[in-house]
Amino acid sequence: MKINALVAPHATQPLSSGQIALRSVQAQDVKIEILYCGVCHSDLHMARNEWGVSNYPLVPGHEIVGRVVETGKSVSRFQAGDLVGVGVMVDSCRECHFCQQQEEQYCEAGWTATYNGTDKYTGGSTWGGYAQHVVADQHFVVAIPTNLPLAGVAPLLCAGVTVWSPLRYGNVKAGDRVGVVGLGGLGHMAVKLASALGAEVTLFTTSPQKGEDALRLGAKRVVISRDAAQMAACQASLDLILDCVSAPHDLDPYLATLKTNGKLVLVGIPEQPHPSPNVSPIVNRRLSISGSSIGSIKETQDMLDFCGQHAITADIELIAGEAIETAFARMLRGDVKYRFVIDMQATRW
Amino acid sequence: MKINALVAPHATQPLSSGQIALRSVQAQDVKIEILYCGVCHSDLHMARNEWGVSNYPLVPGHEIVGRVVETGKSVSRFQAGDLVGVGVMVDSCRECHFCQQQEEQYCEAGWTATYNGTDKYTGGSTWGGYAQHVVADQHFVVAIPTNLPLAGVAPLLCAGVTVWSPLRYGNVKAGDRVGVVGLGGLGHMAVKLASALGAEVTLFTTSPQKGEDALRLGAKRVVISRDAAQMAACQASLDLILDCVSAPHDLDPYLATLKTNGKLVLVGIPEQPHPSPNVSPIVNRRLSISGSSIGSIKETQDMLDFCGQHAITADIELIAGEAIETAFARMLRGDVKYRFVIDMQATRW
Ligand SMILES: [Zn+2]
Ligand SMILES: [Zn+2]
Ligand SMILES: [Zn+2]
Ligand SMILES: [Zn+2]
Repeated sequence: MKINALVAPHATQPLSSGQIALRSVQAQDVKIEILYCGVCHSDLHMARNEWGVSNYPLVPGHEIVGRVVETGKSVSRFQAGDLVGVGVMVDSCRECHFCQQQEEQYCEAGWTATYNGTDKYTGGSTWGGYAQHVVADQHFVVAIPTNLPLAGVAPLLCAGVTVWSPLRYGNVKAGDRVGVVGLGGLGHMAVKLASALGAEVTLFTTSPQKGEDALRLGAKRVVISRDAAQMAACQASLDLILDCVSAPHDLDPYLATLKTNGKLVLVGIPEQPHPSPNVSPIVNRRLSISGSSIGSIKETQDMLDFCGQHAITADIELIAGEAIETAFARMLRGDVKYRFVIDMQATRW
Repeated sequence: MKINALVAPHATQPLSSGQIALRSVQAQDVKIEILYCGVCHSDLHMARNEWGVSNYPLVPGHEIVGRVVETGKSVSRFQAGDLVGVGVMVDSCRECHFCQQQEEQYCEAGWTATYNGTDKYTGGSTWGGYAQHVVADQHFVVAIPTNLPLAGVAPLLCAGVTVWSPLRYGNVKAGDRVGVVGLGGLGHMAVKLASALGAEVTLFTTSPQKGEDALRLGAKRVVISRDAAQMAACQASLDLILDCVSAPHDLDPYLATLKTNGKLVLVGIPEQPHPSPNVSPIVNRRLSISGSSIGSIKETQDMLDFCGQHAITADIELIAGEAIETAFARMLRGDVKYRFVIDMQATRW
């Protein structure tokens, strides 16, 4: 089945309208008419082969929301008309320790990426959400609460769950003091979700002009991370920090803001390692530096349900597909509040 | 009360026999005749002011075992003749969150070190265990099981509890796979304690000649860390690694041996930071790098009781006090299996 999509023909060519062939709907499959797709930084890296793993042609997009238009004969969880989402994964081995305990994001065999992965039925590439339709196994499809503005839901499928998972794994609860480093796509969701969980959120940013926004999004305190006095004023005050900045940066000033037993969780992967952290405070105050990768399907569903209950969506700028390269360029300058989302129905193919 | 001790008169002068004045026995104090004192690497660093915090004269030693000879009028837990130990701490604030929950090693006001600390009664220095006697508050005195060879108990008070605490905090249990990096004073205790807890222990060492010893001490597997093939063979196999090496070293090869969710715990503090770890596996497999500092008084007592039940002591070389500088020199060459212990009764003052 041929559909329209925004296709990267090669690492050095811009995305443009083209056609791709989706797999036919299998017994466990759901076919979704895509309404909105968020524009994640990964999409940009992958479109341009910056991680060296891209195969072309490539269709990016793993923050997908849409409506079910067809279901395979064994599909029980969804029916035509349902509002659903697809995130970063569309398959996994289903059999390993991690798949068995619903942590597919750590599948020992490696999960199948929503785009640039290998489709187990066709043997070809998986195709992402910058497109009119997507076909995915029902296990990797989540239900979308019906009370939310749909375009703002799209970024929850990657950015949202990427910060939700470590907040839950770190057992963040009401009254905890949580730091968030960086107010971008990930960081702004971290502020919203952590504060909705009842945590008192401190936002660290290098940009004084982001302070007002951070408070509006739910932060109780904004700290300009380049201001040593402000950093010193929050020494040993935080239980957990979600570090949402991918560029290499010094972790020591953030470690200093953790209480004893505090956790610094990295969700971004820098191209070069961060400067090496000082071991002394890590040992003397039993700190930890850890990481977290996206989130499971169950966590994604839990997060969406939570967002429905708390009326949480991402702050977005809606664009038509034709504007994708302009959007990429603005993302590279950090000029987006806080996620671009492609409106498929406004897109001319 | 004047007693004999091995005194460092200055950073650049050798330890030699001298006299110090202990504080008089306070209501909560226990006076202990020291029988054995372990020789910790910290003692060497402090004697020579290598951390820049030493005050002179200085008497090292915080792996103390001995016999109670006098008790203050409010002492309830001990009586003359009891076998007891004193470790790295002799006081703390008793009031902060951590002191209240029996984690004095993370006291927010900072605990009082057994030597080179400030004695709250005299205002002068605290004096360590390279001496005939020590006076300490009963709260910081632990009971020694009577079935153990006493000289081998001394190193448990620092080296033992320093590895015990992270094993317990990391919830290591029977069947877990634990890695230990380095077979020195700390590492050899980690192998013994982790295997007695039922863990399957892998010992990482740069010294092929240590392999046989590691197996004798309880390790199931010895991996020569410079051998890439051996390291590759244990990829993703361990739940927790206790890294007992203080010299700066590359953490990435050890991170690779952790299972998803695995923990690398540092107990040594290098003078220069370790090379910066690669973030990608930390994020993609939810690994953590953390630290741990000594252990609480409760943990020390638990560990000693456990060692009594499992007949565990350190492997030691007994020396007289006069040999301390020779012992220091051999420690710097890594030439000790696995801890020097000073026999006070064999020492000529
Ligand atoms: Zn993404
Ligand atoms: Zn799996
Ligand atoms: Zn020590
Ligand atoms: Zn305290």
